[in-house]
Amino acid sequence: MSVFEPVGPGFAVGLDIGGTKVMGVLLDPDERVIGSVRLPTVHGVDGVVATALTAVRALTDGIGLVRAQLAGLGVGVPGVVDPIRGTVEHAVNLGLPGEPTPLARLLSEALDGLCVTCENDLNVAALGAAHGVGMPSDLAFLALGTGLGAGIVLDGRVRRGAFGAAGEIGHLTFDPDGPLCACGQRGCLEVYGSGGSIDARWPSDGVTPAPVALFAAAAAGDVRAVSIRDSVVSAVATAVRVLVLTTDVPLVVLGGGVAALREPLLEGVVGVLDAQATGSGFLRSMRIPERVVLTPAGVPVGAVGAGLLVRDQAS
Amino acid sequence: MSVFEPVGPGFAVGLDIGGTKVMGVLLDPDERVIGSVRLPTVHGVDGVVATALTAVRALTDGIGLVRAQLAGLGVGVPGVVDPIRGTVEHAVNLGLPGEPTPLARLLSEALDGLCVTCENDLNVAALGAAHGVGMPSDLAFLALGTGLGAGIVLDGRVRRGAFGAAGEIGHLTFDPDGPLCACGQRGCLEVYGSGGSIDARWPSDGVTPAPVALFAAAAAGDVRAVSIRDSVVSAVATAVRVLVLTTDVPLVVLGGGVAALREPLLEGVVGVLDAQATGSGFLRSMRIPERVVLTPAGVPVGAVGAGLLVRDQAS
Repeated sequence: MSVFEPVGPGFAVGLDIGGTKVMGVLLDPDERVIGSVRLPTVHGVDGVVATALTAVRALTDGIGLVRAQLAGLGVGVPGVVDPIRGTVEHAVNLGLPGEPTPLARLLSEALDGLCVTCENDLNVAALGAAHGVGMPSDLAFLALGTGLGAGIVLDGRVRRGAFGAAGEIGHLTFDPDGPLCACGQRGCLEVYGSGGSIDARWPSDGVTPAPVALFAAAAAGDVRAVSIRDSVVSAVATAVRVLVLTTDVPLVVLGGGVAALREPLLEGVVGVLDAQATGSGFLRSMRIPERVVLTPAGVPVGAVGAGLLVRDQAS
Repeated sequence: MSVFEPVGPGFAVGLDIGGTKVMGVLLDPDERVIGSVRLPTVHGVDGVVATALTAVRALTDGIGLVRAQLAGLGVGVPGVVDPIRGTVEHAVNLGLPGEPTPLARLLSEALDGLCVTCENDLNVAALGAAHGVGMPSDLAFLALGTGLGAGIVLDGRVRRGAFGAAGEIGHLTFDPDGPLCACGQRGCLEVYGSGGSIDARWPSDGVTPAPVALFAAAAAGDVRAVSIRDSVVSAVATAVRVLVLTTDVPLVVLGGGVAALREPLLEGVVGVLDAQATGSGFLRSMRIPERVVLTPAGVPVGAVGAGLLVRDQAS
């Protein structure tokens, strides 16, 4: 028996299916990551299912994990997800149709009846981030990716809300006179604080990611870059304030592509929050700057959180 | 035996202790209001305790309720409340000292060891409003009183947060160039949407409440009144959007003194929300205007919610 051969039941696969890539992890029964995979996403229902199956097989077959050892599969996808029915809607960047896609059933059927749970991608990222920072009960995961939105875990449970829309703070107004947002409103937080907004205002040269290039140019004194960078950190700071003053989560975890900037982003956001608190005893008492952290480096929080759904499903 | 004589155990008293008045209710074992009282608040620790005891006795002694029939006392108070320790802090408008006041213990000692639970006044109002609208599981109570803030009930439980500050949305920025707020920031939502902000901008003549006078003057075409009224409804609409897009509660209940305006307030707020949704498919899909309701007329939601704490404490 190889030392890498998995023993016993209780393993879980977590997949984070995004518009460009699928991240997958294999969790052992102690919720440690013992394998990971990254594949390009094939769009459309058949494409998404095929990519997911390829990822599951890559994670399990290679180390000889058999079906009986797998407790289940958790899947994070963008869009409006009904975790009870296992359906996905409005996941436009996966090329799924208008009507709800029964993703959990399709995957379960292709995997010999394996138990499959689906959840919104920001919600699984929040679960994964909570696991990563060792504080599983209460936090918000602020995703700065193509869009801007939050996954929220309160008292250890994902907060979905009445329409599965909890955390949709990217479409709160930052500047009512600002540019049009894809949602049809003007000056949404997403128009200033998302990775997409940086791509649009400071396009990448194809080598350096746009946020890195923007922050480097700003650090070098480029006036336009400074202005764009300042709008990014201000919008992110506003999003943090909204999350804290509404839900009073003790922790806001910055994640998504823009958070790959690491300390320069965190320092910028904390700087804005510190400045805002200067004149306000109320704000100082809220200790907002102290609540902001970066997502753990190198951890695919979405895939890990998706894998943790399997545990929650069992309880 | 009189028909009014209460039979059996399981009665509860709820008190909502505010800066000017104490509202009290007696709930029967089926959570129906069978008595109510309203007293002016005497400030300071001794005054608050004495007022509360007077209210409890007025609700119980008059109908011959004896100590053994009373399951407990629930108390809503402004400020930062620790429901576990039963202490109150920062309740400046009750004239309480800087250090935490052990209100639950003081009241329990004066009431022969009766079980006493304390909770923030907005949180009990949210519980009472949820009870009043027959949807006890998930809502926000947006209080438009001296200040502006929300009590939030999620999945049937009061959301307190890490610092007891959940719902403190009155100090989110509405206009960064606006007037100073008491909290030290500029242009907070509270500066535009609270009853206090109306009092300051359109003082009452001592007969007609300021919000009523303001809305009447605006309806009559007074240009300055129109401008103030529009800022009030815009700020309240923004507060509703923040609550819905962050927590996705299915219901936002407008309460507090300004909500005594009833339909004219509701129509104004819904009008702003409708207009905002016109150009945004995203906002329309959120159905925010449909989620806004007025607090049930004639129900002292704070006192009722405080009485319901006794039930929660037993479970």
